[in-house]
Amino acid sequence: MTDPINQQILLKSRPVGEPKERDFVFVETPIPEPGEGEILNRTIYLSLDPYMRGRMSDRESYAAPVELGSVMVGGTVSQVIKSNHPQFSTGDFVLGYDGWQTYGISKGETLRKLDPKQAPISYALGVTGMPGMTAYFALLDIGQPKAGETVVVSAASGAVGSVAGQIAKIKGCRVVGVAGSDSKCDYVVKELGFDACINRKTQDLSSDLKAACPDGIDVYFDNTAGPILEAVLQQINLGARIPLVGLISQYNAENAPPGPNLMPLLVKRALIQGFLVGDYQHRQAEFVKDVSEWLREGKLKYKEDVVERLDRAPHAFIGLLQGKNFGKLIVKVSDDPTR
Amino acid sequence: MTDPINQQILLKSRPVGEPKERDFVFVETPIPEPGEGEILNRTIYLSLDPYMRGRMSDRESYAAPVELGSVMVGGTVSQVIKSNHPQFSTGDFVLGYDGWQTYGISKGETLRKLDPKQAPISYALGVTGMPGMTAYFALLDIGQPKAGETVVVSAASGAVGSVAGQIAKIKGCRVVGVAGSDSKCDYVVKELGFDACINRKTQDLSSDLKAACPDGIDVYFDNTAGPILEAVLQQINLGARIPLVGLISQYNAENAPPGPNLMPLLVKRALIQGFLVGDYQHRQAEFVKDVSEWLREGKLKYKEDVVERLDRAPHAFIGLLQGKNFGKLIVKVSDDPTR
Repeated sequence: MTDPINQQILLKSRPVGEPKERDFVFVETPIPEPGEGEILNRTIYLSLDPYMRGRMSDRESYAAPVELGSVMVGGTVSQVIKSNHPQFSTGDFVLGYDGWQTYGISKGETLRKLDPKQAPISYALGVTGMPGMTAYFALLDIGQPKAGETVVVSAASGAVGSVAGQIAKIKGCRVVGVAGSDSKCDYVVKELGFDACINRKTQDLSSDLKAACPDGIDVYFDNTAGPILEAVLQQINLGARIPLVGLISQYNAENAPPGPNLMPLLVKRALIQGFLVGDYQHRQAEFVKDVSEWLREGKLKYKEDVVERLDRAPHAFIGLLQGKNFGKLIVKVSDDPTR
Repeated sequence: MTDPINQQILLKSRPVGEPKERDFVFVETPIPEPGEGEILNRTIYLSLDPYMRGRMSDRESYAAPVELGSVMVGGTVSQVIKSNHPQFSTGDFVLGYDGWQTYGISKGETLRKLDPKQAPISYALGVTGMPGMTAYFALLDIGQPKAGETVVVSAASGAVGSVAGQIAKIKGCRVVGVAGSDSKCDYVVKELGFDACINRKTQDLSSDLKAACPDGIDVYFDNTAGPILEAVLQQINLGARIPLVGLISQYNAENAPPGPNLMPLLVKRALIQGFLVGDYQHRQAEFVKDVSEWLREGKLKYKEDVVERLDRAPHAFIGLLQGKNFGKLIVKVSDDPTR
């Protein structure tokens, strides 16, 4: 082993509003020894995702909060350093959930082996992992886009939104993104092939949405809730479908802000349905098959925003909730021997 | 013809907030003569329903507004006085849409003949008509209640809510109503057989809902939106279904008030879907078959709140939006020869 110590970032206090760097603490501890049936992993990439804000809070949610003084949770791509598990060997690359630390112990049940020849190993935290699967099932199962329909996607340059919008294009829809800067909008239109993109910060959301969606909105892939959802509801078509995938706009709010007036749902017989990717684990194979093919054919593009070094994770995560990242945000925790 | 004139109530001005009696005007006009293929009806019963508030406004909705100076629209049960239509004869009882007037001309396509031996003819405005059909399809198609689940119904003593709750009981659910007075709650529990009922005006909605729904809420049949929906969302179960059938709480609002925070939908992967009964016309037969049978078997009870005389319709309608009616509100416009 080259590193004598395990670097960890612990949750020190529950953030009030936006997380601050002082809500985290960086510590060094001995590298743990794997027990019977356990595996020791060296973290190569750590995924940073908006849902982590929920884990920092002790409000009721779909998962238990991180205990104060514990390592922050998170998806990781790692290399096996030492294995007492028959199915994993030293040198294997694995997708796991070791959290914000340089070394993690795993029991193997939740690990998935990665083949570096198939795709860059970091993709398992994005386009071929949880964010991609969220995009795939929320769009196709709840959104049910049909060719010729108009699909709007918020947080359109993000890990989930960029994949959702591209899948909607593959399905033959007109796709309009909403993103947080002109350069993100450029990327979404020119690189990812969306038909239009609205900068939510500088443009008039309602009138630009109307202009970009002359036939109304059939599907709204909602990563944000808040003002974008409100503007979209004014322009939904009969029988519109709104997968509610994230509420980024309010993750830092201390009190749950009011939502949109729901009259348009009644008038247009439309549907809003909450989505959590965990419910779709049993259908992972469908997703992996389609997405791998689309990536090979060049129909699906993917951008990463790579931050170097674990100690920068808190700062990068704070920026994520402010929309400062550009592409899927990951922390490169240690060398990636495959690149 | 016994009456020399047609009494009509016209929409005089678009109400601001709560409708006032001065927004309507009572006029007397000659009885119209039916043309080729037309039918002249004498109105016996006029239905008053919350959706009419929407027709008084020129905001965008699912139907065009009533023009100022025109007869207010509304469902009617009438007797044919004179017919130039091969399928209708003098003396027939018919369900139509003649509006707030004592005589109406109809072309026949939208008329349905009523058999006074099957059920009181006024029921066609309620339990066997549009409100009953709303309850039936919104509950069964969107709500999909399963035996043993908990169903909450707002406006529980009303024309739609009372039928929705009773159907949920027939399907084996625990049913909890929310109504606007103790006497309505008594009726809902003792007469209609709901398991519990909460008086939204005097009880603590959240804590009483929690007490009445110890296993959480699986289906919320929403006639009101507003604070009841907000309280319900805090206690929905995984995969809950919320048919959004009415927004009575805000029909008088000049500006659309904010809705509930939608985080619980995401956390519980729940669904809110707007419903309009007009989409289900092609499935009317299913509804009529089931409901007629339940009425015959005494499984379904029905209460009418009958106001005498057309000129009292504005006052009665204003009260309807304030929850002053008790049971399905109808105006008895002229003698019912079947009772």
